[in-house]
Amino acid sequence: MTIAAQDLSLTFAALADPTRRAILERLALGDATVSELAEPFAVTQQAISKHLKVLERAGLISRSRAAQSRPCQLETGRLDGAADWISRHRQLWEERYDRLDEHLAALRRRPEGEPKERGT
Amino acid sequence: MTIAAQDLSLTFAALADPTRRAILERLALGDATVSELAEPFAVTQQAISKHLKVLERAGLISRSRAAQSRPCQLETGRLDGAADWISRHRQLWEERYDRLDEHLAALRRRPEGEPKERGT
Repeated sequence: MTIAAQDLSLTFAALADPTRRAILERLALGDATVSELAEPFAVTQQAISKHLKVLERAGLISRSRAAQSRPCQLETGRLDGAADWISRHRQLWEERYDRLDEHLAALRRRPEGEPKERGT
Repeated sequence: MTIAAQDLSLTFAALADPTRRAILERLALGDATVSELAEPFAVTQQAISKHLKVLERAGLISRSRAAQSRPCQLETGRLDGAADWISRHRQLWEERYDRLDEHLAALRRRPEGEPKERGT
């Protein structure tokens, strides 16, 4: 597996949890410490710390080493990678359906009962 | 957890595997049977069948019940849901940075050394 594919797998796996998605939504509004992030959830700070580790390993957040409280910050590069994968894939699919539409339109343009062209 | 949140978790979990992503990429080009899907991979048809079950449970593909070969078809609704979540989240983050930019621009507009307004 290439590094890009591994990164993409880690990103999607990190996004596959509702608490982690809520943490990212909170961080989109501004940096926050573990205790600030734990507040709205009915889980321990320890559980939040585990989620933060998954998000950090997936490159979706970074944490300051300077302050004792180590505030978390959103990193959007990986998220862009995930969005790019989905949109590339959607595009392939749409092109496939456009080709099908064109084919059907071409069939419709040929009046009913008109014989196929043959060599004269 | 709401049903929408559960669906989103299943979608992202299904996308967190490179073989499953490759299967979706293949299906974007056209419907395919299990043996057609297994061909380009160095894995058994049984392993592919397991991946297809994960993709089907996540609503990313559907399988025909009619034919013995049960060809697989891409379903894009769930993929749109995943893309929507990412783009909503990106938007929040961009708005935050726009506000920060405006704030910095406002600070720059005030000439250096000019005293803050006070009540006269």
